[in-house]
Amino acid sequence: MLVAIPPVATSTSTLLVRFCETDLMGIVHHGNYLTYFEAARVTYLKRRGVAYDTWIERGINLAVAEINVRYRRPAKFDDTLHIDTRITEITRVTVTYAYALRRGEEVLAEGETKLACVGPDLRLKRLPSDVVESLLAAESRPDAP
Amino acid sequence: MLVAIPPVATSTSTLLVRFCETDLMGIVHHGNYLTYFEAARVTYLKRRGVAYDTWIERGINLAVAEINVRYRRPAKFDDTLHIDTRITEITRVTVTYAYALRRGEEVLAEGETKLACVGPDLRLKRLPSDVVESLLAAESRPDAP
Amino acid sequence: MLVAIPPVATSTSTLLVRFCETDLMGIVHHGNYLTYFEAARVTYLKRRGVAYDTWIERGINLAVAEINVRYRRPAKFDDTLHIDTRITEITRVTVTYAYALRRGEEVLAEGETKLACVGPDLRLKRLPSDVVESLLAAESRPDAP
Amino acid sequence: MLVAIPPVATSTSTLLVRFCETDLMGIVHHGNYLTYFEAARVTYLKRRGVAYDTWIERGINLAVAEINVRYRRPAKFDDTLHIDTRITEITRVTVTYAYALRRGEEVLAEGETKLACVGPDLRLKRLPSDVVESLLAAESRPDAP
Repeated sequence: MLVAIPPVATSTSTLLVRFCETDLMGIVHHGNYLTYFEAARVTYLKRRGVAYDTWIERGINLAVAEINVRYRRPAKFDDTLHIDTRITEITRVTVTYAYALRRGEEVLAEGETKLACVGPDLRLKRLPSDVVESLLAAESRPDAP
Repeated sequence: MLVAIPPVATSTSTLLVRFCETDLMGIVHHGNYLTYFEAARVTYLKRRGVAYDTWIERGINLAVAEINVRYRRPAKFDDTLHIDTRITEITRVTVTYAYALRRGEEVLAEGETKLACVGPDLRLKRLPSDVVESLLAAESRPDAP
Repeated sequence: MLVAIPPVATSTSTLLVRFCETDLMGIVHHGNYLTYFEAARVTYLKRRGVAYDTWIERGINLAVAEINVRYRRPAKFDDTLHIDTRITEITRVTVTYAYALRRGEEVLAEGETKLACVGPDLRLKRLPSDVVESLLAAESRPDAP
Repeated sequence: MLVAIPPVATSTSTLLVRFCETDLMGIVHHGNYLTYFEAARVTYLKRRGVAYDTWIERGINLAVAEINVRYRRPAKFDDTLHIDTRITEITRVTVTYAYALRRGEEVLAEGETKLACVGPDLRLKRLPSDVVESLLAAESRPDAP
């Protein structure tokens, strides 16, 4: 069961690179991109009126099953970064996000994350229909951080 | 109620600085020292035959209530660091550790952590007597990593 | 040489707790407070028209020499946190910041950081007078993030 | 120019999961796997008599260009993890590592990292022949941590 993804399933969030996120090469350490993508997913949900922790309280956890990142150009301390986040696939138990991380118009990295819906016992669980609906909705709160 | 601290309440552990722990100054980011001290506390318990997660399973969490660190000299990527860890105070509900972080004989940083015993609800809880006993014991497994 | 600290040497910044900043106790790991304080110092300078990396380019690094944190109450995933940041002492070579980290009116933690001015060689260096002036100025860009 | 990869281009390293590496799901946060893989690469070089920082000093940086990780089962606090690390491809300017992260015989995650050789200016640079030779060598110091 593949769900058709509407064009509105996209959001752009913004963050500022912290000093502690750099490494001795003077650039952002590559591991931090995963936390940027994760923060972008939290914003993606907030823009649709969903606080992720309310899903966790219901026993719905979106656990990372697979990640891919291509690093194009380095991000630096204090850069303002934009993350274009969109959903590219939803199945009965997974949702896949794709990202473009930009500094202005310059794309610094691209990536994807496949998340699996699991219960508190970390076993696979069907994505509830209201969750799918929220994931595919248009932004209702475009100012949410 | 202050408990007398025996001289055996001390252990020395070793770790290797990871690349991701550096920052753009080319040295270890100061925040990582707290995670080094935390790892040293886990080793301290293992040397006394205690796996910290067995305490967590019993509902005994040692939450950080206060930290102090004085940074003397920078640590660098791939440095082998030694952490001399000793207990300096135990009360009904708290235990305080002190640390000297060394590269060879050179002390790079010193610090203290006061931990409070709390339950899963994060409320203060008396330190069980077997826990105090383990904290003050001599090393029984000096090779534990 | 102690410098008198004017009441305007204070700023309040805001941040959102990220998922990756929590630990298995379900709360923010204590080490992250140091990175929150660091981010607050970067904002403090921006509010006074200073991008910290321009100081680094001039060979002026503010290295952490000492930290203290008292943890009062846990911060949680997705909390909006406010950090009241003020300068409490300036000497020829050091500047000390104090912080109150709040969730609404509730103070979750308090702390101090003493920073030492060092060159790229990590040797102590006198704080330039324009740097001191910026540190003690009132906010000129109160909207800087 | 693809280089044939000899079967000896493999090493297994070991690490211990730290408390700070967990998140509120009670398991290791997915971002940390990248730092585990990075630590495994540092060990891989040490087993061949190379300290990575001596390459950095020569202006040879191996910057991460691409990563992929498939997460099979969660790692937990205090787990002893083994990382089987092998080189799968070398071109004029890139080297690709593949990993299996295990707890005992149980594979928890698999992944790959493509690294690009860059100078201090972050521009692509041909991999020097002695670097390629070290990357493809058998372990000469099998006990290096």
